[in-house]
Amino acid sequence: MRLVVCFLSLLTVFGPAECGNVLVWFSDGSHWINLKIVLETLIDRGHNVTVLVPDASLFMKAKESDRFSYQPFNASVDEQEMRDFIEELVYFSVYETDQLNLLQFLMKFYNLASIIQDMCTSYCDGILKSSKLMDKLRNGKFDIVLSDPMYPCSDILAEELNVPLVYTFRLSIANVLERMCGQIPAPPSFVPGVMSKLTDKMSFTERIMNMLFYLSQDFFATIAWRKFDNYYTEYLKESPTVHPIMKPLSLLIYSRHEDMEEFVQSSGDDGIVVFTLGSLVEKMLKETINKIASALAQIPQKVLWRYNGEKPDTLGENTRTYKWIPQNDLLGHPKTRAFITHGGTNSIYEAIYHGVPMVGIPLFADQPDNLVHMKAKGAAVVIDNIKTMEPQDLVDGLNTIINDPSYKENTMRLSRIHHDRPIKPLDEAVFWIEFVMRNKGAKHLRVEAHNLTWYQYHCLDVFAFLIAILTVVLYAFFKMCKFFIIRCCFRKSKKE
Amino acid sequence: MRLVVCFLSLLTVFGPAECGNVLVWFSDGSHWINLKIVLETLIDRGHNVTVLVPDASLFMKAKESDRFSYQPFNASVDEQEMRDFIEELVYFSVYETDQLNLLQFLMKFYNLASIIQDMCTSYCDGILKSSKLMDKLRNGKFDIVLSDPMYPCSDILAEELNVPLVYTFRLSIANVLERMCGQIPAPPSFVPGVMSKLTDKMSFTERIMNMLFYLSQDFFATIAWRKFDNYYTEYLKESPTVHPIMKPLSLLIYSRHEDMEEFVQSSGDDGIVVFTLGSLVEKMLKETINKIASALAQIPQKVLWRYNGEKPDTLGENTRTYKWIPQNDLLGHPKTRAFITHGGTNSIYEAIYHGVPMVGIPLFADQPDNLVHMKAKGAAVVIDNIKTMEPQDLVDGLNTIINDPSYKENTMRLSRIHHDRPIKPLDEAVFWIEFVMRNKGAKHLRVEAHNLTWYQYHCLDVFAFLIAILTVVLYAFFKMCKFFIIRCCFRKSKKE
Repeated sequence: MRLVVCFLSLLTVFGPAECGNVLVWFSDGSHWINLKIVLETLIDRGHNVTVLVPDASLFMKAKESDRFSYQPFNASVDEQEMRDFIEELVYFSVYETDQLNLLQFLMKFYNLASIIQDMCTSYCDGILKSSKLMDKLRNGKFDIVLSDPMYPCSDILAEELNVPLVYTFRLSIANVLERMCGQIPAPPSFVPGVMSKLTDKMSFTERIMNMLFYLSQDFFATIAWRKFDNYYTEYLKESPTVHPIMKPLSLLIYSRHEDMEEFVQSSGDDGIVVFTLGSLVEKMLKETINKIASALAQIPQKVLWRYNGEKPDTLGENTRTYKWIPQNDLLGHPKTRAFITHGGTNSIYEAIYHGVPMVGIPLFADQPDNLVHMKAKGAAVVIDNIKTMEPQDLVDGLNTIINDPSYKENTMRLSRIHHDRPIKPLDEAVFWIEFVMRNKGAKHLRVEAHNLTWYQYHCLDVFAFLIAILTVVLYAFFKMCKFFIIRCCFRKSKKE
Repeated sequence: MRLVVCFLSLLTVFGPAECGNVLVWFSDGSHWINLKIVLETLIDRGHNVTVLVPDASLFMKAKESDRFSYQPFNASVDEQEMRDFIEELVYFSVYETDQLNLLQFLMKFYNLASIIQDMCTSYCDGILKSSKLMDKLRNGKFDIVLSDPMYPCSDILAEELNVPLVYTFRLSIANVLERMCGQIPAPPSFVPGVMSKLTDKMSFTERIMNMLFYLSQDFFATIAWRKFDNYYTEYLKESPTVHPIMKPLSLLIYSRHEDMEEFVQSSGDDGIVVFTLGSLVEKMLKETINKIASALAQIPQKVLWRYNGEKPDTLGENTRTYKWIPQNDLLGHPKTRAFITHGGTNSIYEAIYHGVPMVGIPLFADQPDNLVHMKAKGAAVVIDNIKTMEPQDLVDGLNTIINDPSYKENTMRLSRIHHDRPIKPLDEAVFWIEFVMRNKGAKHLRVEAHNLTWYQYHCLDVFAFLIAILTVVLYAFFKMCKFFIIRCCFRKSKKE
C-alpha cells in the first residue's frame, strides 16, 4: 500500500478554504460514524464531498437529508452476510476464544480473517474493476481521496486518479501500520502493541509477550496482505509501503429526549448508570443478558440500558431498556454516576470528556486494550470475561467506582487534560485535510524510511560491515601476536 | 538530568491565563534572543517573569526598559573571558580543523569542551551554592522554571524549588538529548545526526559515518556529563534522565532605518544582497574579509553587509557595511534577491519565511548542517570552507541563486509550507508553558522509557531469553535426532 501523509496530530483555527472536491472511500461501523463528522465540517467549509457506497452497508445508508453525494458501486456482499459475519466475530471473541484449543483457534481466526479479506476484495473489485465507474471518477476532478486504511485499495484509487490520499485512522493490531509509517516510534520495550492488553509498565514476562505479539502480528500481516499484492502488482509499478495520518476524534452530538429526562430526574441523589455495548453488538446469549439484568436490579441507581433484544426475565424496576440512547448527552448529565461500557474508542472518549468512571465489559477488537488503559489510570473497573461473569461482579464493580471517590477524581483528571488542548480535534482534522489539498499532497512530510529495505532501516548492513572490520582487525592482531610468540618461544627453545 | 515535559510541537489559540510566576535560567547568545520573545509574550499575558542573570553575559544585559525582573548572581566568568572563548571556538572551527592532525584536533576539542564545562560549573555554583539566593528563590513562589538545556543544572533548581521544568531547545550534537527524550525517534538509517552534515538520503558509506557519529557522540556525552554527576548525586537521589520540549521559533521584529531604505531603493532592478554572519562572530582574518569584499564588488546588486571590523581594502562601491542591520526586515524587502548567511537557525528561518535563496558560508555548531539541508532542498548554494574560499566561488554562488529561477521557486515553496500552519509558533510555545503551569507539570506525557535500563530499552534481555529458549529447543532436538539415528544404525549393524 502507498500514500501521501504521515504525521502526529497537530491542532488549529483557520480561515476560509478554497472550495475543493473530496472523494471518500467506503467504510462502515464506528469508522464511518467518525468519518461522517469530518465530512460534515468539510461541507460546512464549502467543499463538495462524494462518498463511495456499496449496495450493502450496515451504517452507510444514503439519506435524502444528507448533504454529500453518494456514488454507489456493486459489491458481491449482501447486508445479511455482513450481519452474520459480525455476529460470528463477536461470538468467537466473547464465547469461543477460551473454549477452543490452539489449532481450532488458529483455524477459526484464519477463517474469519479470510472472510474479511474476501469482503474487502469484493469492494476493491467493485470500484477498481468497473471501468464505467472509474471513468466517472477520473472525470470527477477530485482534489483528494479520504479513507480509513481498515478498508484496503483506496491508495490504488488515489494513484489511478493521481490525487493525494489522506487516511483517517484509529489503530492497527500490534501497531503494524503505525510502525510502517516510520515516523511513529514503537520500541517494544515500553510501547505495548495495540490489542496486547498490556500497558507501558511491563514486567520482564510481559515484555517477552509484547515482543512475541509484535513479531507474530508482523508475520500475520505479511500473510494477510499477500492477497492484495495482485492489486498492487497490477496497478502500481512500485513496491508497496504504508504511512497513515493519525486523527483521534471525540465529539458526537445528539438531541435530548423528554421521557428519558423524567426517568433520569426520578433517580434522586443516587443518580443514574448509563449502559451500552456499542454500535455493532445487537444480540447476546440470553443467559448473559439475564445475569446482567439481575445485577442491575440490585443497585440503588436508575439504569438506562441501550438494548435491542427480548425483555430479560430478571429486569429490575430501576432499569429501563432503550433501542437507542443519546449516550454523549446522558454521560454529560449531572446525575450520571457511572458508565457500563464495552470500551469502544468513541465511548471511552465520551466518558473521559465528561469525567464519568467506567465499568468495562470488553468484547473484542481494541476494547480490552482501551479498558486496560483506563484501569491503569484508575478510571475503570474491568470485568475480564463476560461469559464467566457473575451478577455480583458487576454489582461490586459499580459499587466500587461509585463509592470510592478516587475513581471519580482520576476520571475528572483525565477529563481536564483531555479538554486542555489548544484547538478542537475536528478543526485539527479538517485543517490537515485542507493542507494536503492546498499543497497537492504533503511529500515533504514523508520519511525517508520508505525508500529503505528492512535491513537498511534497522542498520543491519552497517552493523555487519562494522563487525566484519572489527573481526578482521582482531584476527590480524591475534595472528600477529601468535606469530611473535611462536617466534620468540621457537628461538628460546632453539637456544636451549 | 531530569525534567518534566517531552513532546513534539503542537499549535494553538487560547483564552486568558491565570497569572503565574515564571523563573528563567540563564542563557546567552542566540538562545537568549529566542527565549526573550517567549518571555515578552508571557508578560503580555499577565505572568511575572524573573530571569537569573550572571555578572558577565554577552547578550543578557539588564535594561531599565525591560519588563521582566532580573535576579543577579555571581559567577567566576568575566565578559572578556567569554569573548575570548568564542573567538577561539570560531577560529578553531573555521581555520584550524583541517590544519591539525587527529591528536591535536582531539586535544583542542577536549580543551574547548573543558572550558565550556568550567563556565557552566561556575554558573551552577553561582546559583545552587549561594544559600542566600536559593532561599530567596524558594520564597519566590514560582510556578515553573524555563531553561535551555545547553546550560545545565536548571533541572536541579526546579527539583529544589519543587516546581515543573520546561526546556526550550534547538538541538544537541547527534541528537543525544532528543534521543534520551525517548519519544523522538531517530533511527540512524534515515535520521542524520545533528551536525553530521548528512541529509535523510544517505549512501551506504554515509550511513556508516552516521552510525559512527551517533556512537562516538553518545560516548562523548557520557564523558562530558560526568563532570556534572557530582551535582546530581549531591542534590537528587535518583539517577539522571532527560526529556526536553521542542520549540522552534522563527519571528523577530525590527524597526526600519531610512538611510538604509534609500540605499536599497538605489539598487534598481538588480536588487540587493543581504549579508550577515551571525550574532557571535565579530572578527575574522583580514585575508578572508578582503576576499569576501572583492567578490561582492563584482556583482551588479547592492550589498548590505553587517560587519563590525576594519574597513576592507577591496570594498566595492556597491557594498555598504553596517554595525547592525534589521535582517528580518531586509529579507522581507521586495528588492532582496539573495542572502549570504552563516546558516544560524534564526537566519535560516527568516530566509525561509520570506522566501530568499541563500549562499551559505557555515562557520561552526549547527550551521554546516542547516545549510546542507537547505542545499538538499534546492534553496541554497553552500561554500564549504571559508578559509580556502576564492572570491570567484562567492560570485558564482550568488549568480547561481539569483539567475537560476529554480532556487527562488524552491525557497518560495519552503516559505509557503512554513506559513501554512494552523497557529503561530510563539502562541504554541506559550500555550504549552501555561499548560505545564496549569497542570502542575505534565507527568502524563512522560514516556515509560525513562524507567528502563538501556538493555531493557533495546529489548536485549528479551532477545537473549528468546535466543536461549530457541538454542535449548534446537539442542534437544539435535540430541534426540542423534540418539535415534545412532540407535537405528546400531541395531542395523547388530543385525548384520
